[in-house]
Amino acid sequence: MRMYDIIKKKRDGYALCEAEIREFIKGYVAGEIPDYQVSALLMAIFFRGMTDEETAILTDAMAHSGDTVDLSCFGDLSVDKHSTGGVGDKTTLVITPVLASLGAKVAKMTGRGLGHTGGTADKLESIEGFCTSLSGDRFISQTEEIGIAVTAQGGNLTPADKMLYALRDVTATVDSIPLITSSIMSKKLAAGAKNIVLDVKMGSGAFMKSEADAETLARKMVDIGKRCGRNVSALITNMDRPLGSAVGNSLEVIEAAGVLRGEVKGDLYETCVALATEMAALSLSLSPDEAKRQVVDAIESKAAFEKMKQWISAQGGNSDWLSDVSLFPKAAYSLEIKADRGGFITKMDAEMIGTAVVILGGGRLKKDDGIDHSAGIMLYAKTGDKIEEGDILCTLYTCNEQSLSAAADKYREAIKIGDEKPDTIPQVVKILR
Amino acid sequence: MRMYDIIKKKRDGYALCEAEIREFIKGYVAGEIPDYQVSALLMAIFFRGMTDEETAILTDAMAHSGDTVDLSCFGDLSVDKHSTGGVGDKTTLVITPVLASLGAKVAKMTGRGLGHTGGTADKLESIEGFCTSLSGDRFISQTEEIGIAVTAQGGNLTPADKMLYALRDVTATVDSIPLITSSIMSKKLAAGAKNIVLDVKMGSGAFMKSEADAETLARKMVDIGKRCGRNVSALITNMDRPLGSAVGNSLEVIEAAGVLRGEVKGDLYETCVALATEMAALSLSLSPDEAKRQVVDAIESKAAFEKMKQWISAQGGNSDWLSDVSLFPKAAYSLEIKADRGGFITKMDAEMIGTAVVILGGGRLKKDDGIDHSAGIMLYAKTGDKIEEGDILCTLYTCNEQSLSAAADKYREAIKIGDEKPDTIPQVVKILR
Repeated sequence: MRMYDIIKKKRDGYALCEAEIREFIKGYVAGEIPDYQVSALLMAIFFRGMTDEETAILTDAMAHSGDTVDLSCFGDLSVDKHSTGGVGDKTTLVITPVLASLGAKVAKMTGRGLGHTGGTADKLESIEGFCTSLSGDRFISQTEEIGIAVTAQGGNLTPADKMLYALRDVTATVDSIPLITSSIMSKKLAAGAKNIVLDVKMGSGAFMKSEADAETLARKMVDIGKRCGRNVSALITNMDRPLGSAVGNSLEVIEAAGVLRGEVKGDLYETCVALATEMAALSLSLSPDEAKRQVVDAIESKAAFEKMKQWISAQGGNSDWLSDVSLFPKAAYSLEIKADRGGFITKMDAEMIGTAVVILGGGRLKKDDGIDHSAGIMLYAKTGDKIEEGDILCTLYTCNEQSLSAAADKYREAIKIGDEKPDTIPQVVKILR
Repeated sequence: MRMYDIIKKKRDGYALCEAEIREFIKGYVAGEIPDYQVSALLMAIFFRGMTDEETAILTDAMAHSGDTVDLSCFGDLSVDKHSTGGVGDKTTLVITPVLASLGAKVAKMTGRGLGHTGGTADKLESIEGFCTSLSGDRFISQTEEIGIAVTAQGGNLTPADKMLYALRDVTATVDSIPLITSSIMSKKLAAGAKNIVLDVKMGSGAFMKSEADAETLARKMVDIGKRCGRNVSALITNMDRPLGSAVGNSLEVIEAAGVLRGEVKGDLYETCVALATEMAALSLSLSPDEAKRQVVDAIESKAAFEKMKQWISAQGGNSDWLSDVSLFPKAAYSLEIKADRGGFITKMDAEMIGTAVVILGGGRLKKDDGIDHSAGIMLYAKTGDKIEEGDILCTLYTCNEQSLSAAADKYREAIKIGDEKPDTIPQVVKILR
C-alpha cells in the first residue's frame, strides 16, 4: 500500500478502507510518511469528505496512536464532557462536582488556554496549591474515593491528533467536519470515559457560526462516538456572547463557586444544568426529567458545593477560598467602562472579549507564555440587556496597567448598542442524542 | 502575505492575484515555503482550477525562476516544438533539419527518456561522437551558422518546475490542466523561442486518453503561450499506437533518416509534415498551404537530409552513418514474434510497447540508469493492418538475451488481434491556432 495511492483514491472521491486509514496514521506517527503527502491527503479530505465509517476508523486509529486511559474499573459510571471552545466557559468547574455528588465517576483530562479561549487547568491553578498534574495511579484512586479527579493532559495521548492538528493549522485544512470530528472524538476515546456529553458552541464566539453547521458537527460527533462504542449526547449552546459574567481565570472560579453556592443564575446556570442533566442521564441511566431533578437538588442542597471543596482539597488547593472568595489575590489595576449612550446591547463579539482578556494578561498567545490569574473582565450587561448612559458595562482587571487602554478599545469594538431590543437565541438551542 | 492565506483563498475558490502567485513561487524556490504547504495548495488547485490569467502568471513566474535562454538575436525566426510524450516519437530528428533548411532557427533544449517514453538526447547519442552538451555560446553560434543546435537541458532552467513536478509526482496532483500547462509552457518560455508548436498526443499511449481532454489541454496551452507573448499552435495527434515502425534509440534515428531520404512514409511522415508545416507557417510567416509546399519540397529535394548531415557533423557525430545505416552497432540478440492467428490488429497499447523496450534495455526506469542504444523493437504491423497466421509482427533487439522473453510477453499483452477491421482515428486529429 502506497501513500500515493491513498491520496489519489480520496482525491478521486472513493472511500478509504480500514487498512488504508490505519496504515496512514501508523506511518505518519512513525515518521515514515512525510508531511507533504499528509497535507495533500488532508486537502483531498477537505474537498471529498469522509463517510461515517471512514471517520469512525480514523477516529479509532488516532485514539490508539499513543497511550490511552483505562477507566473500565468504573463500569458504566465514567462520564466526560467536551466543549468545542468558548469564552467565559467555566462549566467544567460546576458540572464535575455535581456529577460526582450524584455518584458518577468524573476522571477528566483537561487542557490549557490558547488564544481567545481559556483552559480549565489554568483556571484551577488560580487556587493556591491546586495541583493539575496527577500521576496515573492517583488519578484513578482519587476518582475511586471522591468521584472526581482533573488533571492537565500529559503523557503521549493521541500523538496522531497533535501531528495532524499542527499540520492542518498551517495548511488551511482545519474546517473539515470529518477532521474536526476525528480530532475531538479521538481525544475523548483515548481519555477513556464510557459516557460523553459534547457541548457544541454556535454563534459569533464559536467556530460554528450557524445552527445548521453546529448541528451537522454535533450529529457527526454523536454518531462517530456511538460507532466507537460510547454513549454520546450533544448539546448545541449559544456562544454569541460570553457565558456568564466572568472572563479570566480566578474570576471564573469565583463565579463557578457562586453557581454551586446558589448565588449565580442566568445563562451559566442554565447551561450547567442542561449539560449535567445529560451527563447524569447517560452515566446513571436516568430519564432526562429525573436526571434534571437530581442535578438541581445537588446544587440547591449544596451537596455539589461540598463535593467541589472536597475535590479542591484532594488536589492540594485551599478550599476555604471557595467559601470566602476575597481570599483570591486581586489584580493591581482595574478600569470601569461606562456606556456612552443608552439603549440595548444588540451584539457582543465573544471572541473579541476573549482577546481583550488575553491583552490584560489572562490568556496566552503562544503555548509557553505565562499567565496572570487575576486578569480578566467582569461583564455587568450582556446581549439583550437595557442600559442607561453612564451605566457601568464592565470592569477590566490586570497587573499590567499599560494593557488597560488597548483592552478597553477591544471591549468597545466587541459590543454594539442600539435602540431596539435584539432577538436573542436560547441558551440551549438543541439536544442531540 | 502568508502562504496559509494563499492556500485558504484557493481552497475557497477564489482566483489568486499576481503578487500571491509570484510570492509563492519565489518563496518555494528560496526554500522559505515548506513542501507541506505547497502540496496542500497543489491539491486545492487540483479541485478549484485556475483562471487563464492565474495560469499565465504562474507559467511566467516558473519560467523566470531560474536561468532563461535568450534567442532574441534570431528575431521572429526562432522556433521550438514540444510533444506531450509518446512512444516511437522521433519527429524532432526529422523536423529540425527541415525547418533549418527553410531558414528558420531551431535552437532546441531536449530531455532524456524516462519510463516508457524516449528522449531525443538519448536517440542522438546513438550516433558515434555526437555531443549533446553544448556551451551556451556554442549553442547560439551553431544555430547562427547552420540554423540548428540541439543540447540536453542543463543549467538551472525552471527550478520551480523541477521542484513542483517532483512534489506533484508523489502527492497525486499531476493531472491538473493548469499545473500541466504551466509546467510545459514555463519550460518552453524559458527555452526562448518566439514560435512554439505543441504536439498533444491522445490515445492509449498518451496522458490524454480522449479527444476532449487533449483539446482542453491544447487550447489552454495555446492561450497561455499567447498571453505570455509567444506565437503558439497545437496539433492533436494520434498515439493509440507507437509512431512509425521503430521504437528504441538507434532504430529511431535510422527511421528518421529514412524519412529525410524519402524512403519512409505513413503515420510518421504525415505527422512530421504536419508539425513542420505549422512551425514553418509561424516562424517564416507563410500561409499553411505555402508552408506545407516548402516542407514537402525540403524533404523531396533532400535539402533537409543534407541539413541533417551538416547538423550531426557540427555536433561531432559521424554523418556517414545517416547514409549507410549498417554502420550503427547492432544488438547481439534478436527475436521475431509471429502471429498465432490471422485477422486484423485491433489494438496496440503504445505504453506497454514502450515498457517492452525498457525491458530490452532501451530505456531507463530511474534517472541514472544506463541505456542500450541498440535495444528496441521494429514493428511490421500496426493497428488496422490485416495479418495472416505466421506473419512476423515485430523483431525485438537487445544485448541482454535474458530480457527477450519478458519483453515478448509484454509485446503480446500490448496487442489485440480480431476478426473485424477496427475504426482508426486520423494521425492528425486537429490543429488549434
